[in-house]
Amino acid sequence: MSDTSQPGVHCENRRPTLEEALRLPRIAIENTEPVLDNGRFAVKAIAGQSVTVASTIFTDGHDQLGAALYWRADGESGWHRLRMKFVGNDRWQVEFTPLRVARHLFVVEAWWDLYETYRHELQKKHAAGVPVSLELQEGRLHLQRAAEHAQGEVRATLEDLLRRLEQAPHTEAVELLLSAEACAAMSAADPHPHRIYSNAFPLDVERERTLFASWYELFPRSQTDSPHRHGTFKDVIARLPAIHDMGFDVLYFPPIHPIGRRFRKGRNNSLEAGPDDPGSPYAIGGEEGGHEAIHPQLGSREDFRELVAAAGEYDLEIALDFAVQCSQDHPWLKQHPGWFSWRPDGSIRYAENPPKKYQDIVNVDFYAKDAIPDLWVALRDVLLGWVAEGVKVFRVDNPHTKPLPFWEWLIGDVRGRHPEVIFLAEAFTRPAMMLRLGKLGFSQSYTYFTWRNAKEELTAYFTELNEAPARHCMRPNFFVNTPDINPFFLQHSGRAGFLIRAALATMGSGLWGMYSGFELCEAAALPGREEYLDSEKYEIRPRDYQVPGNIVAEIAQLNRIRRYNPALQTHLGFEPYNIWNDNILLFGKRTPDLSNFVLVAVNLDPWHAQEAHFELPLWEFGLPDHADMHGEDLMSGHRWTWHGKKQWTRLDPDYLPFGIWKLTPPE
Amino acid sequence: MSDTSQPGVHCENRRPTLEEALRLPRIAIENTEPVLDNGRFAVKAIAGQSVTVASTIFTDGHDQLGAALYWRADGESGWHRLRMKFVGNDRWQVEFTPLRVARHLFVVEAWWDLYETYRHELQKKHAAGVPVSLELQEGRLHLQRAAEHAQGEVRATLEDLLRRLEQAPHTEAVELLLSAEACAAMSAADPHPHRIYSNAFPLDVERERTLFASWYELFPRSQTDSPHRHGTFKDVIARLPAIHDMGFDVLYFPPIHPIGRRFRKGRNNSLEAGPDDPGSPYAIGGEEGGHEAIHPQLGSREDFRELVAAAGEYDLEIALDFAVQCSQDHPWLKQHPGWFSWRPDGSIRYAENPPKKYQDIVNVDFYAKDAIPDLWVALRDVLLGWVAEGVKVFRVDNPHTKPLPFWEWLIGDVRGRHPEVIFLAEAFTRPAMMLRLGKLGFSQSYTYFTWRNAKEELTAYFTELNEAPARHCMRPNFFVNTPDINPFFLQHSGRAGFLIRAALATMGSGLWGMYSGFELCEAAALPGREEYLDSEKYEIRPRDYQVPGNIVAEIAQLNRIRRYNPALQTHLGFEPYNIWNDNILLFGKRTPDLSNFVLVAVNLDPWHAQEAHFELPLWEFGLPDHADMHGEDLMSGHRWTWHGKKQWTRLDPDYLPFGIWKLTPPE
Repeated sequence: MSDTSQPGVHCENRRPTLEEALRLPRIAIENTEPVLDNGRFAVKAIAGQSVTVASTIFTDGHDQLGAALYWRADGESGWHRLRMKFVGNDRWQVEFTPLRVARHLFVVEAWWDLYETYRHELQKKHAAGVPVSLELQEGRLHLQRAAEHAQGEVRATLEDLLRRLEQAPHTEAVELLLSAEACAAMSAADPHPHRIYSNAFPLDVERERTLFASWYELFPRSQTDSPHRHGTFKDVIARLPAIHDMGFDVLYFPPIHPIGRRFRKGRNNSLEAGPDDPGSPYAIGGEEGGHEAIHPQLGSREDFRELVAAAGEYDLEIALDFAVQCSQDHPWLKQHPGWFSWRPDGSIRYAENPPKKYQDIVNVDFYAKDAIPDLWVALRDVLLGWVAEGVKVFRVDNPHTKPLPFWEWLIGDVRGRHPEVIFLAEAFTRPAMMLRLGKLGFSQSYTYFTWRNAKEELTAYFTELNEAPARHCMRPNFFVNTPDINPFFLQHSGRAGFLIRAALATMGSGLWGMYSGFELCEAAALPGREEYLDSEKYEIRPRDYQVPGNIVAEIAQLNRIRRYNPALQTHLGFEPYNIWNDNILLFGKRTPDLSNFVLVAVNLDPWHAQEAHFELPLWEFGLPDHADMHGEDLMSGHRWTWHGKKQWTRLDPDYLPFGIWKLTPPE
Repeated sequence: MSDTSQPGVHCENRRPTLEEALRLPRIAIENTEPVLDNGRFAVKAIAGQSVTVASTIFTDGHDQLGAALYWRADGESGWHRLRMKFVGNDRWQVEFTPLRVARHLFVVEAWWDLYETYRHELQKKHAAGVPVSLELQEGRLHLQRAAEHAQGEVRATLEDLLRRLEQAPHTEAVELLLSAEACAAMSAADPHPHRIYSNAFPLDVERERTLFASWYELFPRSQTDSPHRHGTFKDVIARLPAIHDMGFDVLYFPPIHPIGRRFRKGRNNSLEAGPDDPGSPYAIGGEEGGHEAIHPQLGSREDFRELVAAAGEYDLEIALDFAVQCSQDHPWLKQHPGWFSWRPDGSIRYAENPPKKYQDIVNVDFYAKDAIPDLWVALRDVLLGWVAEGVKVFRVDNPHTKPLPFWEWLIGDVRGRHPEVIFLAEAFTRPAMMLRLGKLGFSQSYTYFTWRNAKEELTAYFTELNEAPARHCMRPNFFVNTPDINPFFLQHSGRAGFLIRAALATMGSGLWGMYSGFELCEAAALPGREEYLDSEKYEIRPRDYQVPGNIVAEIAQLNRIRRYNPALQTHLGFEPYNIWNDNILLFGKRTPDLSNFVLVAVNLDPWHAQEAHFELPLWEFGLPDHADMHGEDLMSGHRWTWHGKKQWTRLDPDYLPFGIWKLTPPE
């Protein structure tokens, strides 16, 4: 411990002086929801879906308060205002539905509602038969004072009320003062004493596909019938109907840019590439250009435009990879050497994401003298270029290894111009960073889902994603596999395992994704690693999409079920239920109004049939334990009526390891 | 919903421009603990007791970070600085011990520790046998750059290291660069790139008696042998040895000021007072003066001073009641009519704390035009006047019915002059207000303890008080009774019930209090009410303190146990344990270092003996289930050795309804 001089911050946190205290609010507004980090970051919302704002509001004494919500979208000149409702224990709330895809703000207002306090007292005393002549006098004074400051119609109403009060006998005067007319006029004329506003809290309203979408990932170069023929955008166009039929609506490509030659990786991530090895598309940049360019073997810019247009006809959006890194042949190394950090021997340190090593990739140095702000602007312009080509969805590679302020600015800048643009954060790192990326503006996030297999860990994770702060800043995109992740669970589970993971992903979140090959139950791995054998990252891999044992039909049905059941179009509304078997996960998903309720049971054991008693959540509908409930198997279409809370199920992986049942209470 | 103009707040919450983003911190510091409402309010601490500060700190990429804590007391010119330690999952922490009773501030600092990153890599590569000649070159560059900016001794060390490096063979160079000497010099010369400071967070450091004290409440006027002779301060002095012997260290009086005559309450709160009825001391103010004055029948100012001095000799602090209210005879009504809110008939509305009515009391209007700021200053000066008389403890009556900003200013102002002054908030209201009063500066709080009787509700409440935010802002003073609360539980429980409540209060919190009569098991109530029959609030009530069946000895022993066991000098460190009987509450209290561990079992049933198996918390000491543990019954002095985790107890209310056992693991 040592005495040192002051850290370079503004360290004012004094007790208030009398003058300051007299200006401090008499009312407290606290615990406003939904809010992230005291309003430093925007909470996420969806255009057309309601937002409930709630605050704890209190003051000294026993007077009545009033509260209201102000909200508006970026660029709106006026505010929308809604009265908040008291819901008990100092809590107030109100719902509103933003319609525009834009940054929004909301503010909570509270004040002493003097007339409501008065009305309350008058009513109680009058009802109790207590003399109220003094209260009647006070009522007239309330109206008089309000009339003095009111204008127009309100003033006329108040003056009229005062005239009628003068002639009114006792009981009639009480009725006049308690009347809806008097309350409305007094509310309109209310000077809102001790009025306080909360901070303005930001809300990022995005389009529905940020919360509900099914992603399909493929390497365009593998859309071919031979490992010796490089697939093209035209080949991808031929695949669109099949991808659409499986129910996907986002089609995502790893980088489509020219690939470097120096330090190019060979098959299975080897450090020596053969002359015909295509290299990792993540080694971005070559003679033909950098992040703005298209790898010539995929086709022309015109071909790409055709692909975007054709995808649109199948309601498929193209998602591109935004990977801020360069091969050693990227034009930027020569054009902008000052954007990189060079070592004493004239080399640049290659990229690492421990324990992974990317010898074919170097990183830019965002804070190098020459990189500020040129590199930042250049990267933004790369994105804007692709947006101009009709790409509105970007999967961002390893955002946790690039500076936080860069993302906050970049996403804000792009979405300020194009609010419909969606960013998916491909970060697999510690929880604080995962959440922070969502707070900075990423619309969607990769998750730990891929490594959650047991009942207890799935329940805990789904629950955590439903709770603050995650629910406000992280829309989880459940990828069942990726080119980088061949999950251990799938390596030995057989077809049943793929069905299990597909059911968990599609039912667990509104967002899920798969990398092609999953539907064919591809599982061959590098021994002891979560890497695919003969990884497509380093070679062209044609596939037979009709291979026996594929789960294309099941995936299509799962996606179809999602489309018809709003409860499944979000990760929110999750609730685990009791089933007396640790191998079966039972959970419900429901819309807030319970108009759609889906019960999902997944046998997590891909090798054995599992069976158990479970609790049918009748209580969620306010029904007694002996009530009836209609059920519908959404995979088979079969319908029945359950009797009572205690039920039994059996899930056989040889047939289908999960059940998806829509619950409808009898009318 | 309607468009309206902008609320009167500063609604800036824009996305950052590029220029702003470039100035945003590259490192994130979040979830710093202990912090209340983002630093708006001060967290509570005790002089001489350690405070652990922890933050989640992270940045992009994989570089090493450094972190430090700055802290200082109000008025200190320099800052104390401590390096924080990385404890996993992005969390950093450090402990410090403030010694002064004062407002403190602390700030967390973080930066990129470039040399630590370098050292880490060099060490790993060297250990793995990877060639490091390039790294050695980089190491020399690190030292060179640092030497250029360093001064004095550090520079000399770095230059010396550089000289030695030039001549060093390979392995020796590695050792030099990894040496403690190099690390220390580089740490001293570190330019702290990407340095960020957290906000400055406030901490109110108070003296130990704010957390650990035993309060005894009495009406001085009842310290008499006859209801017809008004007790005096001199009579109170005669009682001091007995109160001290029971182990109390705060002696609290309801208001000692002149009492109003108009609307004076008679016995049992009747609206008609007889000529000899003394009235409620809460109806403050009469001809003889107001809040600054002493009720003449109690004695002179000189007598009061003698009492304060005499109490001091018994280690008893006098606590006065600060009740911001006036009888209708208070001098302020005539001197400062503008401090009150008058009704149309020239009266003032009497005070209410629903459902209670105080017809003999009127409230001031803190925001009346004439009251700002004169009333505020006058009230502050009343307090300062009593502080000048040696009173350092105030129990504040119904603070939740007075404005929040008033308390924040008043407490800050008084404690700014006299940091040792203690304020106890007598608020029984909703949770948000209870917490807020603590945040505003009240040192201690009345609680819901008085109404928590069942095992489940006691466990939940003790747990809640141990958790944030309560643990940071609310020091619970467990009153077993008050002149206003004759708890239903005690009305029919007999002597055993008083022992049960005494044990729960003394063991549950460092702060507890009783109102005289409790030690005599007084319980006579107004039928169906939580009020005492023949309440002392309205009459003089002499007592026989030797009455058979009293629990004076038990209270003295409980207080003695508290004094010798630090674990019992706070409400923190509470943990409930398993005992298979819903009528027995079993919990532990322990110091953070486990050097003091007390296990408490309370039979909550005052009518029947209860017995059960329970779990001896061997695991808290890292011991296996079959381990031995020494036990000492702190009520009887009996000692034994338990064998194993599963134990049995029986608690008989006819003898003693609780057990208090000190646990000491065998050496």
